[in-house]
Amino acid sequence: MKKTAVAHTNIALIKYWGKRDEKLILPANSSLSLTLDQFYTKTTVEWRTDLDADRFVLDGEELQDAKVTRFMEIIRKQFATQQYASIVSENHVPTAAGLASSASAFAALSAAATAALGYDLSNEELSKLARQGSGSASRSIYGDFAIWEKGALADGSDSFAHPLHSNLTKEIAMVVAVVSDKKKKVSSRVGMKSTVETSPFFTAWIERSAVDLEDMKRALSAGDFVKVGEIAERNAMRMHATTLGAEPPFTYFQPLSLEIMDIVREMRHNGIPAYFTMDAGPNVKVICLRKDEQQIQTRLKEIISQVYICHAGEGVKVVNEDE
Amino acid sequence: MKKTAVAHTNIALIKYWGKRDEKLILPANSSLSLTLDQFYTKTTVEWRTDLDADRFVLDGEELQDAKVTRFMEIIRKQFATQQYASIVSENHVPTAAGLASSASAFAALSAAATAALGYDLSNEELSKLARQGSGSASRSIYGDFAIWEKGALADGSDSFAHPLHSNLTKEIAMVVAVVSDKKKKVSSRVGMKSTVETSPFFTAWIERSAVDLEDMKRALSAGDFVKVGEIAERNAMRMHATTLGAEPPFTYFQPLSLEIMDIVREMRHNGIPAYFTMDAGPNVKVICLRKDEQQIQTRLKEIISQVYICHAGEGVKVVNEDE
Repeated sequence: MKKTAVAHTNIALIKYWGKRDEKLILPANSSLSLTLDQFYTKTTVEWRTDLDADRFVLDGEELQDAKVTRFMEIIRKQFATQQYASIVSENHVPTAAGLASSASAFAALSAAATAALGYDLSNEELSKLARQGSGSASRSIYGDFAIWEKGALADGSDSFAHPLHSNLTKEIAMVVAVVSDKKKKVSSRVGMKSTVETSPFFTAWIERSAVDLEDMKRALSAGDFVKVGEIAERNAMRMHATTLGAEPPFTYFQPLSLEIMDIVREMRHNGIPAYFTMDAGPNVKVICLRKDEQQIQTRLKEIISQVYICHAGEGVKVVNEDE
Repeated sequence: MKKTAVAHTNIALIKYWGKRDEKLILPANSSLSLTLDQFYTKTTVEWRTDLDADRFVLDGEELQDAKVTRFMEIIRKQFATQQYASIVSENHVPTAAGLASSASAFAALSAAATAALGYDLSNEELSKLARQGSGSASRSIYGDFAIWEKGALADGSDSFAHPLHSNLTKEIAMVVAVVSDKKKKVSSRVGMKSTVETSPFFTAWIERSAVDLEDMKRALSAGDFVKVGEIAERNAMRMHATTLGAEPPFTYFQPLSLEIMDIVREMRHNGIPAYFTMDAGPNVKVICLRKDEQQIQTRLKEIISQVYICHAGEGVKVVNEDE
């Protein structure tokens, strides 16, 4: 059977940073994100009896990808199949630029692969499965705002995402400034692991991100955009602080990232409510209101060429019924 | 009586960051520094019966400086004089550029003011006094390496610096890259206070800086330059991590600071033992061996105009006997 699914990336406003279980991809903290409408992955999976290994084609190029291979083994085990699959993906995301292409990739792969096996999984089941490919993929199952609960159980069965309603969904925008679309020097997996193992700030990060999450839930429920922005900015900077504490220290900041953050502060000083967040890469995402998005894009285009305006996007869906 | 003293700046390898007493300038952690030969303050103090306020002239310009006024009050109280003084200072330091001009300033002022009153204070007494003008001034009493012990007493009587011997004194160099000589947006006093009050990482910073200090003392005693560099770099990055955790978050990093840090990492990758440290400002100080200093200066001059080579400098001294 062959099925195609589409999933969108998401950007965390409360960051996922640090695992409590490397193998099951269980996080040390809960996180909260906004799914974006502009960046997505479209993936077709066909389970075939004539293959003796999975075939993975990304944007027209056949690849060996250890994360994909590992994930397909998890699916075969969970759904008790011996077959291999042909996987054809189109990534509408600047890859490995810290724009969380693995979130949309594993969300789409989870949906397409299970649908092609004839399953109609609940979002909760899909979220739990996608999490095992890439942690942040657990949130891309949902549109708009989503919370990935870290859970407490050792087997990960209570670690999945759920949607969160907010009146800000129709007002909020994210202006994504692509500082670099080159592959990062320190991947998020490696950076996270080094931080957990060597940064003296990791414990305080986990404690405070729980406070940030509760504050953020309240701000989203109240529709208080300024609070949402302030909490997101402080949470992101705290995540980046932990990497400077690692041994050896490292940072995802690049000179242009700092320039953009300065521009955002300056615009805020001039009365535009705009805040920044950054993930495990140099790109800066500006959290703003839709009414200000054009002005912010125009200003950022003065120093950078790739600047995208995004709104709240949809959750994962199976888009056709090929066979 | 009129006396002149000269004191040099120092750069901390284990940073002083956070006060336990704002008024007495008592630090939350002990720190360790290298006094530099290139940057100094020369100050002449004359106690006069014909003045009804202190007069302060810095680099030929008469100024009202709240920190100097406050410090002169401390001296009048401690040494039981009612007189006011004429203070004439020359600052051979790019002022307020994070090059610790206040360290050399208050060390020189302490020595000149007390000598002009007829006192011949011990280094320990001078260090304790200078500390009350600016914390890092306590270390500029000494040449070469110095440790400012935080002390435990509430009155500050055990919080002063002492010298530390190392065979590296004649081999070590610091290449100072002046990213900006503009006054900083967030002064070190304000940045420190905000960090102590709002950063969730402050407690871990204090705990780990004690470990870094012990490691550094061992590395200096052993003459292990690579360890000295590694410990200094990780300690500095941990200090800067705390500011990203503050509320609101802030950073002393500027785009050029990051570029210089990248260059240092690249040179290290190419076999030159070089490490960076940064204080509460955008300038980057490269810790290296004298044999590599020229090469490092040449490389940094490709992107920045003001690059100074410094060696270990001398402690404070009274330079003449005017009257």
